[in-house]
Amino acid sequence: MSTTDLRPIGVFDSGIGGLTVLRELLQAFPEENFIYLGDTARLPYGSKSAQTVRKYSEQNMKFLIDRDVKAIVVACNTASTQIFENEFMGRPVFNVIDPGSLIASRKTENKKIGVLGTRATVKAEAYKNKIQNLDPQIQVFSTACPLFVPLAEEGWHDDPITNLVAFRYLQNLKQAEVDTVVLGCTHYPLLKLAIRKVFGNHVHLVDSGEAICELMKTDLQSGRIGQNTPEPKKELLICLTDFGVQFEQLTLQLISEVSDRKLIFETVSVI
Amino acid sequence: MSTTDLRPIGVFDSGIGGLTVLRELLQAFPEENFIYLGDTARLPYGSKSAQTVRKYSEQNMKFLIDRDVKAIVVACNTASTQIFENEFMGRPVFNVIDPGSLIASRKTENKKIGVLGTRATVKAEAYKNKIQNLDPQIQVFSTACPLFVPLAEEGWHDDPITNLVAFRYLQNLKQAEVDTVVLGCTHYPLLKLAIRKVFGNHVHLVDSGEAICELMKTDLQSGRIGQNTPEPKKELLICLTDFGVQFEQLTLQLISEVSDRKLIFETVSVI
Repeated sequence: MSTTDLRPIGVFDSGIGGLTVLRELLQAFPEENFIYLGDTARLPYGSKSAQTVRKYSEQNMKFLIDRDVKAIVVACNTASTQIFENEFMGRPVFNVIDPGSLIASRKTENKKIGVLGTRATVKAEAYKNKIQNLDPQIQVFSTACPLFVPLAEEGWHDDPITNLVAFRYLQNLKQAEVDTVVLGCTHYPLLKLAIRKVFGNHVHLVDSGEAICELMKTDLQSGRIGQNTPEPKKELLICLTDFGVQFEQLTLQLISEVSDRKLIFETVSVI
Repeated sequence: MSTTDLRPIGVFDSGIGGLTVLRELLQAFPEENFIYLGDTARLPYGSKSAQTVRKYSEQNMKFLIDRDVKAIVVACNTASTQIFENEFMGRPVFNVIDPGSLIASRKTENKKIGVLGTRATVKAEAYKNKIQNLDPQIQVFSTACPLFVPLAEEGWHDDPITNLVAFRYLQNLKQAEVDTVVLGCTHYPLLKLAIRKVFGNHVHLVDSGEAICELMKTDLQSGRIGQNTPEPKKELLICLTDFGVQFEQLTLQLISEVSDRKLIFETVSVI
């Protein structure tokens, strides 16, 4: 049973990767308000230790709660490896690993799943553990792809260099004959073309943003999260912990493709 | 006139790039003691704003002064763009931009110099301004190379993918017929092979580490910095703001090639 709650949904990432999740959320829930936090002063999280990632993530969640959000989306895989709770200070929390694991385990037919991520995400084995909890028969093959984030940020999305890097990183997974691949970093949907070229069309690519929307839909329908009125605000607040023109431009570009909300940028401190 | 001072020389960078500078220092001054600080919890600096980089650099310098260093080497180009002073809290400070600019302006014959760096270093135009202050006739061509750092950290130093990326980033400089190129990021000496392949053997590559040693030698001889006794400590302290096995391994590998000092790792806080 749905209820009403006019507060925004908070989404955070270490940088711009989480915008691929925000894009999916904006399309899936056009009536909701959102606030985005990019912790650009401390990015990337992928090369940092578990303790540091946990500390930064808690600070980000507290910041969003101070801005009165009704739910929190952890739109960063590395941060999601350190968020084990379903609620934080009374707000529902969605990490990207649970939905991604669930969708992947449903899609695989040969029970061989590939997981792509940063070094930290792969090392944490969160996807592997979660998927094998859902179905112990599934084999999981994980590969760290540290160059994918800077390639995505260079905008080399459809590019021979990116294709070469993808081929090198992914050939082991291809040889293992995985039929489903989790894009375990929110930047990677930007490189879908190159990843698709390695695996071909028959392999399922699981995108964190799409996966999280499926789960959140259930919670909005059940009333775990209240729904906004059908008229959302025309503004979308983008908070960044460091000022940077490049991030603003990339954000404008990525969001304007799916939404005509006016972006308001604010430089904030979360410490 | 040289004097005696048994305190170590402090060297800091956002991560492991500064180890290329430490390597040169260890070879140039085998009698000196060193302490290295890698701000791995907050790396990289290259994508952060000027104010944030300045704040982090000051915290790093204060940390080194608390550890009683006699001089500070800013072994990070991005940080060097925000350190304008020759002394900090009474200690001589060496950034990498002044020496690199000086050596490059001496080496060029056709008065065309290329500068490679992170986005932040290139945007700050520090090399350009410094070189043109030394000789206004010199033309400076700058190029940001954001993929070089992750390629260096992947260990793809002599690799066809790195060669392709280098060719793409550097072709404008090659067409401009520069005869001298400043490696304006302390990671870049690790990619000298690929950079050399683009430019050929006739172009001078200016390495920050080599350049800083030339300047420091003068100060040690003049007595601005006191000299250690001919017997340095057998240990070399490596402080990292975040714990990470990968950084320890890379450090061991890079330092053991030039020195047999025993590395002691310590996780520290600089805030």
